[in-house]
Amino acid sequence: MKIAVDAMGGDHAPQVVIEGVEQARDELTDVEFTLYGDEQQIRPLLKSDTRITIVHTTEKINSDDEPVHAIRSKKQASMVLAAQAVKAGDADAVFSLGSTGALLAAGLLIVGRIRGIDRPGLMPTLPTVDGQGFVMLDVGANAENRPQQLVNYAVMGDFYARDLRGLKNPRVALLNNGSEANKGDALHQETYKLLSDMPNLNFIGNVEADHLLNGVADVVVTDGFTGNAALKAIEGTAKNILRLVKHAIYDGGVRGKLGGLMLKSGITNIAQTFDVSSYGGAALLGLKAPVVKAHGGADAKAVYYTVRQIHDMVQNGTITKVVDYFTQA
Amino acid sequence: MKIAVDAMGGDHAPQVVIEGVEQARDELTDVEFTLYGDEQQIRPLLKSDTRITIVHTTEKINSDDEPVHAIRSKKQASMVLAAQAVKAGDADAVFSLGSTGALLAAGLLIVGRIRGIDRPGLMPTLPTVDGQGFVMLDVGANAENRPQQLVNYAVMGDFYARDLRGLKNPRVALLNNGSEANKGDALHQETYKLLSDMPNLNFIGNVEADHLLNGVADVVVTDGFTGNAALKAIEGTAKNILRLVKHAIYDGGVRGKLGGLMLKSGITNIAQTFDVSSYGGAALLGLKAPVVKAHGGADAKAVYYTVRQIHDMVQNGTITKVVDYFTQA
Repeated sequence: MKIAVDAMGGDHAPQVVIEGVEQARDELTDVEFTLYGDEQQIRPLLKSDTRITIVHTTEKINSDDEPVHAIRSKKQASMVLAAQAVKAGDADAVFSLGSTGALLAAGLLIVGRIRGIDRPGLMPTLPTVDGQGFVMLDVGANAENRPQQLVNYAVMGDFYARDLRGLKNPRVALLNNGSEANKGDALHQETYKLLSDMPNLNFIGNVEADHLLNGVADVVVTDGFTGNAALKAIEGTAKNILRLVKHAIYDGGVRGKLGGLMLKSGITNIAQTFDVSSYGGAALLGLKAPVVKAHGGADAKAVYYTVRQIHDMVQNGTITKVVDYFTQA
Repeated sequence: MKIAVDAMGGDHAPQVVIEGVEQARDELTDVEFTLYGDEQQIRPLLKSDTRITIVHTTEKINSDDEPVHAIRSKKQASMVLAAQAVKAGDADAVFSLGSTGALLAAGLLIVGRIRGIDRPGLMPTLPTVDGQGFVMLDVGANAENRPQQLVNYAVMGDFYARDLRGLKNPRVALLNNGSEANKGDALHQETYKLLSDMPNLNFIGNVEADHLLNGVADVVVTDGFTGNAALKAIEGTAKNILRLVKHAIYDGGVRGKLGGLMLKSGITNIAQTFDVSSYGGAALLGLKAPVVKAHGGADAKAVYYTVRQIHDMVQNGTITKVVDYFTQA
């Protein structure tokens, strides 16, 4: 198994990328990695080149580059070369911490769409209070979606939940503004009807955003605009409250610090539950190969977990199953 | 000043309604209240009928009633009678803890829309980490919106922030999926342009949902579908994390309880910051009089704060200013 890694994407590249990849490499002995990026920066950080090849390039995509233009014009960019490796059959998956827009463009223009899917969806795994988590898509690969696109997300999310989470009959829900079947705008009403007519999908109906973290569904389907707002609202709220709890501990003088010490394991558990880095990266589903993105601010641990996630996707042939499904449909 | 109160709306009616109203009545000596509801239930709960009149009715709107049909057919429902008091000039504002949909229908069919505003917006006040808070609209009165409707929300939110929050130049932002001007779907791109062209509005551009609680804007404009998802995501995340913190304290044995005791003031501060009940209710802006809704699960404290909010809206003539603005526009 070969994974093509854009070593230069993200806020702390290439350091955290290399660190996370090496940790995964030591554990997953069936994986070979190709790191695309500046060899002069990468080489000194690399502990061992066992099953790691460096393909040198100094060009890279910046977060403020216009995605499609950047992918077309920066032909030697680390992200572009990583995507081309998959296109050429030299790698099974692409991994980047770079700009989501650029990675989507690289996916569309280089890796290619699955026939029958016109709009790939971005799908992260999100935490739930019971620690099980759920996947949600699309969270922002698109600013607008049509009903059939949301149905395709449901199908792809279902494949993912079966293969990667080992669920026999994943509960698929539609993010909506109420629980009743007639809720939402035209897009969501029509999507509800279409999902209800899918015989092999365990569609459990609408779910509202305040119940997402309670583990009410395994796959949550949403349009990219709403999904983006819901995801960011969850992230921002969790981050702010956990920071306030930390402040209460550290700014609370001796009492606060002592209290914090006594509550440490409990608070650490909560922080871990809402630490998205252990949930892996966000997959761009709808492309002919696994194209997975980790957060730009991700640390080495998040990189490690994302590589494990990619490994499982390739090993299970999840994308191949999705391709087969839509080809036969 | 007279406030018409639907005493029968909400999960804990009429008890919490009466309790909160009486607390406000004792403090706000310029307000008279009319409570619409079952006198046999209300009378025994009432400590004093000073400046409180009961109008007896046993009919009420249920949360699962179809809103428009219920408002039209249940002519003696407490919510309907309260709205009619405003229509007849017998009250200055309507207050209910009942169904949002029904209250919106009562607002549209009985109180009436402000000329120039075809779609009222629901506007709660949300917490920020600095304790200042912000208003956001629409959070769910509509499942779909057009650009001009969002511009109207901006204008109304701006009036509200000036009058009720005392801000000289409220920062108005558009909830979008990125900070750049060209972000979002057609609705949000067009709204961005229109807001940029408003000379008397301090439009500061797009804001993303993960920054909402950081106090980046005073008025956040959004379509009802996205706003609903963002609001609920914030509420659900805050509630779940604060509950987990409480569990860490109470399930942590002696250490946890001792730690909790030492952190108590800090944690209580956080819980208070995110306790939406002290921020008052959600106003349905775009109607000819203040029509304000408190959460169905609201307690007496939330009722009290919402009455204070209504008092300030009436005293400042906020809705009259909005009516004047749109009449002259």
